[in-house]
Amino acid sequence: MSLNEQVKENIAKNKEDYIEYLQKIVQEQTITGNEKKAQQIVADRLTSKGLEVDVWDPDYEELTKSEFFNPLRDNYDNSPNVVGVLKGKGEGPSVILNGHIDVVPEGDVNKWTDHPYSGAVKDGKLYGRGTTDMKGGNVSTLIALETIINLGIELKGDVIYESVIEEETGGAGTLSAIQRGYHADIAIVPEPSEMKIFPQQQGSLWFKVTVKGEAAHGGTRYEGVSAIDKGWLVYKKILELEEKRNEPLRKDPLYKDNPIPIPINIGQFNAGNFPSSVPEIATIEGRYGVAPGETLQEAKEEFKKMLEGLAEIDERFEKDPATVTWGGIHLPPGGCDLDHPMLEILKDKYEEVKNEQPILAGSTWGTDGGLLTQAGNIPSIIFGPGTTSMAHYTNEYVELDKVFETAEIICLSIIEWCGIVK
Amino acid sequence: MSLNEQVKENIAKNKEDYIEYLQKIVQEQTITGNEKKAQQIVADRLTSKGLEVDVWDPDYEELTKSEFFNPLRDNYDNSPNVVGVLKGKGEGPSVILNGHIDVVPEGDVNKWTDHPYSGAVKDGKLYGRGTTDMKGGNVSTLIALETIINLGIELKGDVIYESVIEEETGGAGTLSAIQRGYHADIAIVPEPSEMKIFPQQQGSLWFKVTVKGEAAHGGTRYEGVSAIDKGWLVYKKILELEEKRNEPLRKDPLYKDNPIPIPINIGQFNAGNFPSSVPEIATIEGRYGVAPGETLQEAKEEFKKMLEGLAEIDERFEKDPATVTWGGIHLPPGGCDLDHPMLEILKDKYEEVKNEQPILAGSTWGTDGGLLTQAGNIPSIIFGPGTTSMAHYTNEYVELDKVFETAEIICLSIIEWCGIVK
Repeated sequence: MSLNEQVKENIAKNKEDYIEYLQKIVQEQTITGNEKKAQQIVADRLTSKGLEVDVWDPDYEELTKSEFFNPLRDNYDNSPNVVGVLKGKGEGPSVILNGHIDVVPEGDVNKWTDHPYSGAVKDGKLYGRGTTDMKGGNVSTLIALETIINLGIELKGDVIYESVIEEETGGAGTLSAIQRGYHADIAIVPEPSEMKIFPQQQGSLWFKVTVKGEAAHGGTRYEGVSAIDKGWLVYKKILELEEKRNEPLRKDPLYKDNPIPIPINIGQFNAGNFPSSVPEIATIEGRYGVAPGETLQEAKEEFKKMLEGLAEIDERFEKDPATVTWGGIHLPPGGCDLDHPMLEILKDKYEEVKNEQPILAGSTWGTDGGLLTQAGNIPSIIFGPGTTSMAHYTNEYVELDKVFETAEIICLSIIEWCGIVK
Repeated sequence: MSLNEQVKENIAKNKEDYIEYLQKIVQEQTITGNEKKAQQIVADRLTSKGLEVDVWDPDYEELTKSEFFNPLRDNYDNSPNVVGVLKGKGEGPSVILNGHIDVVPEGDVNKWTDHPYSGAVKDGKLYGRGTTDMKGGNVSTLIALETIINLGIELKGDVIYESVIEEETGGAGTLSAIQRGYHADIAIVPEPSEMKIFPQQQGSLWFKVTVKGEAAHGGTRYEGVSAIDKGWLVYKKILELEEKRNEPLRKDPLYKDNPIPIPINIGQFNAGNFPSSVPEIATIEGRYGVAPGETLQEAKEEFKKMLEGLAEIDERFEKDPATVTWGGIHLPPGGCDLDHPMLEILKDKYEEVKNEQPILAGSTWGTDGGLLTQAGNIPSIIFGPGTTSMAHYTNEYVELDKVFETAEIICLSIIEWCGIVK
């Protein structure tokens, strides 16, 4: 039996067990601060497979030393990271399989058909918050790893399996794993790419712009300056900046099918606090896409310059400049060279398993892959089974076939990348 | 000594007492729900002058029977109205002196030079929340009334002094006084007109428009429809409606100096709840000026029609129409005929006291005068000492000279209007 056939067969015969395991970790509501029980399940599983397992709570003090740290919490007590290492038996390239255990909140429970943490399986789909983003992906990489062990394959290079906290709110888990010394020659992050391969991932920053008007009574509103009017000027200027920043990327083959490769999404516009007063303050909050290859600092500078340019269209901004603060999501872009050997391997294995060419694209969101690349100096590739459009949505699901196919492709890729002893 | 001289002299010799009384009622923080202690001071004062005094908590159930009722509370227990009646000794026209005891909240205490309820006197100004709007005015009418009593003048018609609650939040106090049967041939409301005479007062409605977009992830924002964009279309349409409604009033001599006679002030624009999502809902809240002579219903209809017209500029509004609700301030316009005899009297007395022509204008805000006119069928005139621009503002004050001059003019006007018993 060829290696490919052995891998396929071994995955097939353990499917029920893998589905049960995925259900178990989905049934834990791993919103921020509540990761511990699920992480214990992951650690136990890795231990049972004979890996060296490391479980630790990220160290807040240590994290503050990194320029990439952007905390939303003031400690990580009882929010452990889990890393399991399958030590290589020789000299060979290593790989990190990185995935986050945290999920975004489930929203309105009543909008879900099943309970948000049911793990119910229907028509080949497994339902629940976090199935697509990204516990399904984490199970794909776990299957890849276990299949190697099950088949008794001895690799030359290390395989480092990371189940991290806090991706959804800024990346402290992955940053802590980097600081703890986990390093490899390549990282695969099985975020929900729908089995597209993302060799480039954009970064993501959250901004809050404050715009000033002048208060007045509603009855004599002509005596004031509406912060809504001034805020609208900022809004339009932000959209102009988005257009300018996306222009060059539209020619990039990875982004050619994407109408807005690195979007600036304005998610909130809030002005005023009394119906009968002219609003004095407007705040505009959003998400700022950072181009692959760009640093967060460069992206912030360009945004700031745009705000400074407002004085040219309205002199009020000379007196009261619009200001920006950065908070919340703070993920750098990441990726690997387009001729990186692991990228070639993944493409080949995809073709072998799926009998078709993979789609390469650039991610429309930031992930921990950016931290691995920029903070950890580890090239990273996104490739996962989840359905992109279901991430963060009601009735989130992952297609089980894709979980297993992704596992198969990653398993074969790891074997080729790390090399077999003998 | 002429009557005019007697009035002037009597006011002059009691100034200290009046200032002390104004301080006492300013020092009570009469925000909504906290009116009782100040109202007791008013009632005691009226009683001490020999008036028939009526103190009652407005009856919620009774109020609900009026189309003009727009409650922000579900009862008025311990928020009494006070009315004192100086019964006429013959057959003569009657007058209501109506003023509200409630004040808007003081805002940020730290922005005030003195404590917001200090009642401090500096350079002829008495400071504190509610001095201009409108306890200073209430003291002007009280002085007018007391001077008549002090001088032993016996009037033919009744003088009804009303100290009401709840003007700032919708008019329940005045509405309750109307329902209780207090009626007169004319009403003077000493709101802060800066001693201008307002024979016409606009009404005021608060609106909240809800606009729908379509949510999507920020990273693929082109899949959604931003409620900010759609909200902006509504915003512009509202401003067009304002222009259209104000056009005819700009020719009105009462409003000729006012760039926007009946403003539509958009005080709040709120959209979205997450930086990285396309905002699904925008709400636009504001204050809608109602023209003198217009009913609230007519004004609402015109607003609704404007919203319906949005479908012509963007078909999305066909599927998801922008909707409006009306809440909070709900004051009809008011006024009196421009040849009303009391208006002539006030103008004459103003000239006699001030040796100059009074300025006649239309009010830029709604007052209880509108309820007196539309719900009570009582013509009403606004004439008060307060500084318009200080109403609702930090370091609010009233100029004491204006309090006394207003008192003098109103005193002489009442005497002429009600007539003296021989």
